[in-house]
Amino acid sequence: MKVLAISGSLRAASNNTALLRAAARLAPADVSVELFCDLGNLPLFNPDIEATDPHVVARFRTQLVTADAVLIASPEYAHGVTGAIKNALNWMVGCEAFVNKPVALLNASPRAVHAQESLKEIISAMSAIIVAEASIAVPILGSHLDDAGIISHPEISKALREALQVLHTVFVRGDDIGCYAVTHNSIYN
Amino acid sequence: MKVLAISGSLRAASNNTALLRAAARLAPADVSVELFCDLGNLPLFNPDIEATDPHVVARFRTQLVTADAVLIASPEYAHGVTGAIKNALNWMVGCEAFVNKPVALLNASPRAVHAQESLKEIISAMSAIIVAEASIAVPILGSHLDDAGIISHPEISKALREALQVLHTVFVRGDDIGCYAVTHNSIYN
Repeated sequence: MKVLAISGSLRAASNNTALLRAAARLAPADVSVELFCDLGNLPLFNPDIEATDPHVVARFRTQLVTADAVLIASPEYAHGVTGAIKNALNWMVGCEAFVNKPVALLNASPRAVHAQESLKEIISAMSAIIVAEASIAVPILGSHLDDAGIISHPEISKALREALQVLHTVFVRGDDIGCYAVTHNSIYN
Repeated sequence: MKVLAISGSLRAASNNTALLRAAARLAPADVSVELFCDLGNLPLFNPDIEATDPHVVARFRTQLVTADAVLIASPEYAHGVTGAIKNALNWMVGCEAFVNKPVALLNASPRAVHAQESLKEIISAMSAIIVAEASIAVPILGSHLDDAGIISHPEISKALREALQVLHTVFVRGDDIGCYAVTHNSIYN
């Protein structure tokens, strides 16, 4: 299973990016997790230039389309999603790259409830399948854990391994076990 | 009263931008409405470069700080705010340019409920004062009305004039008539 991991933060020392790097190293042998590195290089979404298909947008779409599943970890800024993650998602609405794609929403802070709710709503509206049992918030923010620290933390690494295992199971079975196709406030652990 | 008008769309033919241009022309004689033109020129927000204070960010902050009130009109993309508007807002969190600033949330579509709710939550979290009675959604989307058409539309132009009058009254009195300082879902008409 190929997983594309997208961090919604551009900060070099981002807790959410660290969480995704840790997830990549904790993944089962038959799961490869690739971190998307171009979030900060995407232009601001403008419907007037969508048809020009900027190179970096085309590359993002290809990475998404060829991925079997997606991990997203994005911080909360001012009770909302980051502009960077929403900008990236907006580029993918028209091409439907997220349609029927299993997505797990990780988060480095259990307090990021507004951003997580908004992301659920947005990604469900884009017809992705949010895998609720693989969507976990873990207390990295304030812990000073980097990726190595996350990997060596017994509870957090166990939770990450289990989330990836659920995502893998959903992919292998190709069914909707653990999935919630759409809407509102009941789809997230 | 100086009002800064911010459209959340970069599309040249944006209904929300047209609504703001119309509002500028319908404003009372003692109200000047200036349209912010640099939304698409702001870099993607990154806390690592915040301290470098990019020139376009500094200019945005100055325009905000010197404005007595703000109009925001932003479309809904995939059940969420646009990346462009959230990106712009994120640059203003640290400098507190929105603190105690009267803000009216206009919208060119009464169906943009998810985006409006998110904007209310975000802008309230930034300690702005959302002026509920000046926050109106009008049916421009699908109407093919441009700014001239909006201005000549009896009901819509009347609603816009009244919204601007409320905003002006709030500014002149300097009190909280028609204002709701913070949180959650009860603050919006």
